[in-house]
Amino acid sequence: MTILSRSLLSLSLVGLLAMSFAKPTRVIFFGDSITQAGVSPGGYIDRLKKMMPADQFELIGAGIGGNKIYDLYLRMEDDVLAKQPDVVVVWVGVNDVWHKSSFGTGTDPDKFVKFYEAVIKKLKAANARVILCTPATIGEKTDFSNQQDGDLNQYSQLIRDLAKRQNLPLVDLRKAFLDYNLKNNPDNKEKGVLTSDRVHLNEAGNQFVAEQMQKALMESGK
Amino acid sequence: MTILSRSLLSLSLVGLLAMSFAKPTRVIFFGDSITQAGVSPGGYIDRLKKMMPADQFELIGAGIGGNKIYDLYLRMEDDVLAKQPDVVVVWVGVNDVWHKSSFGTGTDPDKFVKFYEAVIKKLKAANARVILCTPATIGEKTDFSNQQDGDLNQYSQLIRDLAKRQNLPLVDLRKAFLDYNLKNNPDNKEKGVLTSDRVHLNEAGNQFVAEQMQKALMESGK
Amino acid sequence: MTILSRSLLSLSLVGLLAMSFAKPTRVIFFGDSITQAGVSPGGYIDRLKKMMPADQFELIGAGIGGNKIYDLYLRMEDDVLAKQPDVVVVWVGVNDVWHKSSFGTGTDPDKFVKFYEAVIKKLKAANARVILCTPATIGEKTDFSNQQDGDLNQYSQLIRDLAKRQNLPLVDLRKAFLDYNLKNNPDNKEKGVLTSDRVHLNEAGNQFVAEQMQKALMESGK
Amino acid sequence: MTILSRSLLSLSLVGLLAMSFAKPTRVIFFGDSITQAGVSPGGYIDRLKKMMPADQFELIGAGIGGNKIYDLYLRMEDDVLAKQPDVVVVWVGVNDVWHKSSFGTGTDPDKFVKFYEAVIKKLKAANARVILCTPATIGEKTDFSNQQDGDLNQYSQLIRDLAKRQNLPLVDLRKAFLDYNLKNNPDNKEKGVLTSDRVHLNEAGNQFVAEQMQKALMESGK
Repeated sequence: MTILSRSLLSLSLVGLLAMSFAKPTRVIFFGDSITQAGVSPGGYIDRLKKMMPADQFELIGAGIGGNKIYDLYLRMEDDVLAKQPDVVVVWVGVNDVWHKSSFGTGTDPDKFVKFYEAVIKKLKAANARVILCTPATIGEKTDFSNQQDGDLNQYSQLIRDLAKRQNLPLVDLRKAFLDYNLKNNPDNKEKGVLTSDRVHLNEAGNQFVAEQMQKALMESGK
Repeated sequence: MTILSRSLLSLSLVGLLAMSFAKPTRVIFFGDSITQAGVSPGGYIDRLKKMMPADQFELIGAGIGGNKIYDLYLRMEDDVLAKQPDVVVVWVGVNDVWHKSSFGTGTDPDKFVKFYEAVIKKLKAANARVILCTPATIGEKTDFSNQQDGDLNQYSQLIRDLAKRQNLPLVDLRKAFLDYNLKNNPDNKEKGVLTSDRVHLNEAGNQFVAEQMQKALMESGK
Repeated sequence: MTILSRSLLSLSLVGLLAMSFAKPTRVIFFGDSITQAGVSPGGYIDRLKKMMPADQFELIGAGIGGNKIYDLYLRMEDDVLAKQPDVVVVWVGVNDVWHKSSFGTGTDPDKFVKFYEAVIKKLKAANARVILCTPATIGEKTDFSNQQDGDLNQYSQLIRDLAKRQNLPLVDLRKAFLDYNLKNNPDNKEKGVLTSDRVHLNEAGNQFVAEQMQKALMESGK
Repeated sequence: MTILSRSLLSLSLVGLLAMSFAKPTRVIFFGDSITQAGVSPGGYIDRLKKMMPADQFELIGAGIGGNKIYDLYLRMEDDVLAKQPDVVVVWVGVNDVWHKSSFGTGTDPDKFVKFYEAVIKKLKAANARVILCTPATIGEKTDFSNQQDGDLNQYSQLIRDLAKRQNLPLVDLRKAFLDYNLKNNPDNKEKGVLTSDRVHLNEAGNQFVAEQMQKALMESGK
């Protein structure tokens, strides 16, 4: 089966799924600056809009630069729940780790989990399906010598455990980015493969994330 | 009027006030390690118990070491609201500032205010009277050369503004400690006046805080 | 005696002094980004050049952005000693404090003193007269509620003590900036008085520093 | 050849080598708290003394708790050069990384290299043979989820590059500890395998380091 025919098949599956809804499935991407940039032309949400049938999926960005998990918690009523989403994709964690060294105001790992659980609880109570994501990268070097690798690995594992514990779908972007870099970053560069600046997505990165998200949305609809 | 007779008068006023309740006024001190130590023998809550009429005031400590404002938020249901307090004294802030340099996980000033407001909102909704306190000290030097003085001054002002905005009583321990040290710490020592280790209260400090709290509780009952 | 005539007298004293040298007194300003910007048009060194007689003073900037005391130590052979200065004005400290929270790589106070002493020792060994400066400001609020005020006050005191211990002239810019702001910053603004961004000098700031430096150079020549 | 006979042969080679000196080879271990503890009974230097022939090797500890590379630089005259060592084993790096988050005063990677080079230069100028070591561990988890893993990997690589560039022997304790933990820490524990507290050596750790050091000293004597 060619890639094209496989894609077509995938899209028809999504179509079949989506048709069962009276109106398009409303998906909110809830996150930080990466998601904020995702709605710009060429951003991952912008790309996804072209990859998913518009009559079946309504994709909304709710990203704000610098957000940590407790920022999401504090603003979720207005920015997410008020819009009555069917699906909420939570993608956060980079700033919880990064702000430790850049401002001294990162998030303790145990509080990270507590606020993440509180966010999930409220989303579930509003009958939204929740999809979790791991933070992708602060530096693309593949030998775990990026300064925040230790924390990113730890916080990603906390999210994986949370997804497992609550039986929620997970987009493991941390793992996906590393796998991609292991294949495509032979010079161990810290940026320029999927990111422009170690953190934010370049063109390839936005496309890559859009594809990962598409897969998850299709899976979650099954 | 002598100090003694004034104190007696004050206590009788408190007495008159407290008698109007069917049962003792339940006061919860909600805070960090300083409050956790406050219930130990000689601690400020322990001292307050001896300074206030037991049939009129029930004093409860709810302090946990290392707590920041959002820790209070996360545990307030179980540790405070479940006990149906009449008055809640919130004393927090040292770790929100201190953890910036010791763990990289302090609290951003704007989030500090947001969570503080969220704590107050829930306490008010439960019909508790709320008393705010400013964080006293991380280092007792009086020339503003203690490392965290800038932040402690800033966060204290945020709490003062909050108290004013919401018309809530304030125990300005930051100001009270500085005033005390200006009189009693001529050698500009960083500890040993009201604290044993720059942060936690020694005997004089526990007595001093007990007196400040007594005044506030009496005022708040008027 | 009017201010003008006093200034003229001062300048002639400087002139007399300078004339005793076969060539102009070579002054190197050794510091961080503030000094790096000082040689730009309108910068404090650029202004000083117009304020001091060119045949008597040769003013050289040796500032590099982000420098801490040990950066000065590491590059002093090439950037200062090789140029055989008569006078070296050392102005450093902002990054030693600031990098604590922005990178986690500030300088411990005791190491700050040790490296400062090592810098002075080498300069003295090369027969340069040394002038010390205190770090001016990270935030212009006058109520000591700028985040780094505690550390800036502490490190400034370390420099004052060092100047006293070694009998070296001191330009106390920390004190001068605070005094200026107490008069000219009634709204307690954090920037815009002498700085453009809390740290780097605006037009008024460059002029102010130039005047402080002029005074010190004239004093040091006596 | 059995392990025993190989060891005996090695020791005799060391013997032959050492005999060529009029007096025992003087080795100074120059480092932080791990080395400071190394001279205590059961410490790695104490163990080494029993593993190496006393008439051929004089082993001296020069470790001070909390030391970073520039602390070594600042005290090397008194603590190392004054003792005219034949060999200096430099083992540092944990605090350069760790102090970023615990005090905000870690060492920038580029300055780490510059001071390390300055230390080596002075040791070479004093005719000491220099052996470098990588920092072993801040947390023994093997999935690179210890908070400082990214930095420890980076700084270790900087030391490996330095050893290669200057053709100096290297004890790659970072690699050795990881390899050991991959075999002996199946539960991904953060301490208790070679360390008591994630950083400092337990009994097994001291023995392991003693063996690594023995190998390096024997190699370096060849």
